[in-house]
Amino acid sequence: MPSYSAPIDDIKFVLQDVLEIHDSPIPGYSELDEEYLNAILEEASKISNEVLAPLNSIGDEHGCTFENGIVYTPPGFKDAFNQLRDGGWTGIDCDVNFGGQGLPYLVSIAVGEMFASANMALGMYHGLTHGAYSAIYSHGSDEQKKKYLPNLVNCKWTGTMNLTEPHCGTDLGLMRTKAIRRSDGTFQISGQKIFISAGDHDLAENIIHLVLAKIPNGPAGVKGISLFIVPKFLVNDDGSLGARNQVSVGKIEKKMGIHGNATCVMNYDGATGYLVGEEHKGMRAMFTMMNEARLGVGLQGLSQAELAYQNALAYAKDRLQGRDVTGSKNPNGLADPIIVHPDIRRNLMDQKCFSEGSRAFILWGANIIDKATRTSDINADGLIGLLTPVIKGFLTDKGFDMTIQAQQIYGGHGYIEEWGMSQFARDARIAMIYEGANGIQALDLVGRKLPQDQGKNMIAFFTILKTYIKENQKKSEEFDNIFLEPMKSATADLEGAVLYFMDKGIKNPNDALSGSYDFMHLFGYVCLGFMWCKMAEASFEATTSGSHNNDFHQSKISTGQYFMERQLPFTKLHLARIRTGSNVVMKLKPENF
Amino acid sequence: MPSYSAPIDDIKFVLQDVLEIHDSPIPGYSELDEEYLNAILEEASKISNEVLAPLNSIGDEHGCTFENGIVYTPPGFKDAFNQLRDGGWTGIDCDVNFGGQGLPYLVSIAVGEMFASANMALGMYHGLTHGAYSAIYSHGSDEQKKKYLPNLVNCKWTGTMNLTEPHCGTDLGLMRTKAIRRSDGTFQISGQKIFISAGDHDLAENIIHLVLAKIPNGPAGVKGISLFIVPKFLVNDDGSLGARNQVSVGKIEKKMGIHGNATCVMNYDGATGYLVGEEHKGMRAMFTMMNEARLGVGLQGLSQAELAYQNALAYAKDRLQGRDVTGSKNPNGLADPIIVHPDIRRNLMDQKCFSEGSRAFILWGANIIDKATRTSDINADGLIGLLTPVIKGFLTDKGFDMTIQAQQIYGGHGYIEEWGMSQFARDARIAMIYEGANGIQALDLVGRKLPQDQGKNMIAFFTILKTYIKENQKKSEEFDNIFLEPMKSATADLEGAVLYFMDKGIKNPNDALSGSYDFMHLFGYVCLGFMWCKMAEASFEATTSGSHNNDFHQSKISTGQYFMERQLPFTKLHLARIRTGSNVVMKLKPENF
Repeated sequence: MPSYSAPIDDIKFVLQDVLEIHDSPIPGYSELDEEYLNAILEEASKISNEVLAPLNSIGDEHGCTFENGIVYTPPGFKDAFNQLRDGGWTGIDCDVNFGGQGLPYLVSIAVGEMFASANMALGMYHGLTHGAYSAIYSHGSDEQKKKYLPNLVNCKWTGTMNLTEPHCGTDLGLMRTKAIRRSDGTFQISGQKIFISAGDHDLAENIIHLVLAKIPNGPAGVKGISLFIVPKFLVNDDGSLGARNQVSVGKIEKKMGIHGNATCVMNYDGATGYLVGEEHKGMRAMFTMMNEARLGVGLQGLSQAELAYQNALAYAKDRLQGRDVTGSKNPNGLADPIIVHPDIRRNLMDQKCFSEGSRAFILWGANIIDKATRTSDINADGLIGLLTPVIKGFLTDKGFDMTIQAQQIYGGHGYIEEWGMSQFARDARIAMIYEGANGIQALDLVGRKLPQDQGKNMIAFFTILKTYIKENQKKSEEFDNIFLEPMKSATADLEGAVLYFMDKGIKNPNDALSGSYDFMHLFGYVCLGFMWCKMAEASFEATTSGSHNNDFHQSKISTGQYFMERQLPFTKLHLARIRTGSNVVMKLKPENF
Repeated sequence: MPSYSAPIDDIKFVLQDVLEIHDSPIPGYSELDEEYLNAILEEASKISNEVLAPLNSIGDEHGCTFENGIVYTPPGFKDAFNQLRDGGWTGIDCDVNFGGQGLPYLVSIAVGEMFASANMALGMYHGLTHGAYSAIYSHGSDEQKKKYLPNLVNCKWTGTMNLTEPHCGTDLGLMRTKAIRRSDGTFQISGQKIFISAGDHDLAENIIHLVLAKIPNGPAGVKGISLFIVPKFLVNDDGSLGARNQVSVGKIEKKMGIHGNATCVMNYDGATGYLVGEEHKGMRAMFTMMNEARLGVGLQGLSQAELAYQNALAYAKDRLQGRDVTGSKNPNGLADPIIVHPDIRRNLMDQKCFSEGSRAFILWGANIIDKATRTSDINADGLIGLLTPVIKGFLTDKGFDMTIQAQQIYGGHGYIEEWGMSQFARDARIAMIYEGANGIQALDLVGRKLPQDQGKNMIAFFTILKTYIKENQKKSEEFDNIFLEPMKSATADLEGAVLYFMDKGIKNPNDALSGSYDFMHLFGYVCLGFMWCKMAEASFEATTSGSHNNDFHQSKISTGQYFMERQLPFTKLHLARIRTGSNVVMKLKPENF
């Protein structure tokens, strides 16, 4: 019953009119001329709408099954996965030397949004494989790269990330999984890992587990963690599959959502593992993948919000109930479509300005990652490090909220599974939790990223905002009043929060940490505000230069205005909460709760 | 795995120290001495903790089944329901003449919170029966009362409310179900009703459906709607069960939550119905029940928030992960309990101040209902009419948010069904939708309740607040600064919103309606702020008079301070949003979305 239509016009608007990728000096960007970009997006849109989306509710309803030690994905997943693989969609930004397309990361994110909207659970199988690819690509030996990467790029094999253990989530220093060196240089891996997405399934002939474990007698805590490749089937030197490794599925979890993705308990019982990079440097290998993985999760927040919004909008235009108080808009019908009612509008506009603003934010983030990786721009690397927890934490929190608002438009029907709105919310919920729960993102932002290098990246971010405001002032009174003035005010709120942390946090770190979650949200609103300024600027330019797509640009400006008036004021609330410090937060003794 | 422990100390604090029921002139209140009240609450707590709560996850997992036309409830529900019935818990506030306990409504709400926390889906079977009781009690003939009420009071029979049809939810004027008068004075009811909670099941020997239908040739729209009793089995004059009526279950819905309650499509195929009250006056009968039913749904918002909070708190004290940045609190353990981390605290404090504030708010609401029904206080009736959409809309929105925050404390485990946190969120979600979706509550508040009788009830509410502030000023500097000053400021924000609506809404109703949702929330924060002032006042008094329960009262004051500093500032955000009016909300044409 629910439907999805990939928003390619909007994606193109951000890439071409806002990020102006055709003028970018980043290697690979200039090849993305309009025709080529269109071809990619149209084709990805087709597979999203026609192949992936129809399986979304099937995946939710059937879920994965675990029988006699074998995990089965929902009906249709295998065929759809093969189509993704055959079309080269699993290696968009991977190295051509290993069979990838070599396109910018930006393109894989643009396409990734569609795939994640159309079928988040299915998309995770190749999403996690991409993570494994990146880990081996960045830290593996040449031999490991040659052996594993080509089949990970084309998803003949898939990958997993094994971090969590029952007693050890965020605090990886507590890890118990052991890796004992054998005389042949391989390691014997023993331990239990939980919450392993795509841990086992029937979509690929082999699964390459990347496992964090401790080599005995190494440094304590996270400094003694190493990274290992543990294939489900050992791989012979000629690339053929060898013996079954000593890794097995304990069970698959019954979850709130993403039923189509198998979340496994993995038992390693003396499995053969191969060290990736250096001993005890496993965390470094994990961290290099973090920005990318977390941006991918932020993308899921957007993708579910977009999907839910599209369906809510269609329902609001279709459902007849009540009359417009200012005069009927459907006098010959029994009632007016509910989109005439102000509170339904308020709800839809919240969703619309979130989806469009977030899309620009994420694509901007991907653009910065390309800058960092393709031009070795050290400032870009610092900037994306700062923005990553905001993209992950803010967009998944708000993305989930938007699925709930979209569900509300349906009234009682929203609560009935067959209408699909429940699934979007249940699926979106996980994105707030995995790849570091959002509270951890806030901690990473305030405790690590903000003070890093004497606040260099935060200062750079403020410089970007202020330069933008300065350069775009007085172009038009309308743009100044509607966009730049509130943007200035929101920027000042963000500065106010940073100053508060600098002033108080040095004396008592809890004064900063008690405001970390609010800071992450404050930062998120500022980023979306900035994106809306840039989008509105592009649309003002288009309308004054007589764009043939005037309605699109007018709508963009109106939606931006809605954001600036109705969403950006959240910065003041968050600043007020931050300034209350830690006293009221930490006052109560645990036993008096 | 999840657990529940009824918060009777907190309920008693509100009833005795805040509402001071022992000093109330409301009939029935003086009988509630400490001993009697204790006995009731302790006994209700016992059945909640020991009988209802253990079935909560079972109900979720098994759900209801529909086989060969018969609906079965989950294992154990029947026995538990019998225990509620045998204990007299289904008729706490019902008329003694029909077998009820005749206790104040306030008591049924205090007990109702526990039952709804322990097992929301099971509680709905007698909750809806109470609604049917009230409808017949207020509008039925003496003969109908005699025939149906005793068995509804003791839940030998249960009741349902049948309003919604596939094309007709909020807009009841579109109703198609027909009632044709027969020569014997009964009516022949034909039509389909959907979303009928407890529509059929195996817990009772008969089900009394209250059905809204249109008698042909009556007034158009809602003015032509009548209310009918349609029993599943016709009832003979001697009270015995007669023939099966022409009403059947079409299907049961697969829902996001409350799986233990059967949500049915009901088909009326010429069923025999009995008119309740006058022809075409069915809406009036429905509306008299609305305040009560909506308060009951608001209670569900609190109940799920409380349940989720209790479990999140236990987990936060138990889960060891990371170290307190200001120094370990568990130096001999591998890590500190996560309750030491400021962001976990922030999350828990949000929940704690919501649950305790809402509990006071709802009990205050029930107290006002008692005043209205037991003393015929016309002002009390107006006041509760004004507060009802706030209780329903605000408490279910925020209650759901709190279940999501509680789930977040669990990290990945929160997403796994067996930990229970998912169920609490999924169950809480419906409360934002049924008994009038929360957007409709906001519309009712701003469009109807606010301007009613020239704003008399709103003015009365402001008088209550201002009188309270005036009378309690300068008792202590601490109370003034921490509680009364922010309360004054929040009250001014609420007034600002009312003035904005008065100024703009008259010219353009959409300027008011575009802010209706924000107004409902602004109002909600003001009410909780008021409750926190009253609770803190009581606790300050207790501590200065040397209470033996000093920790309880200090904790109450700290939690209140948290609310005033960290939650009450939301009023400023909502006012800012309200003041943007309808321009940005209504600007876009539907086709340009």
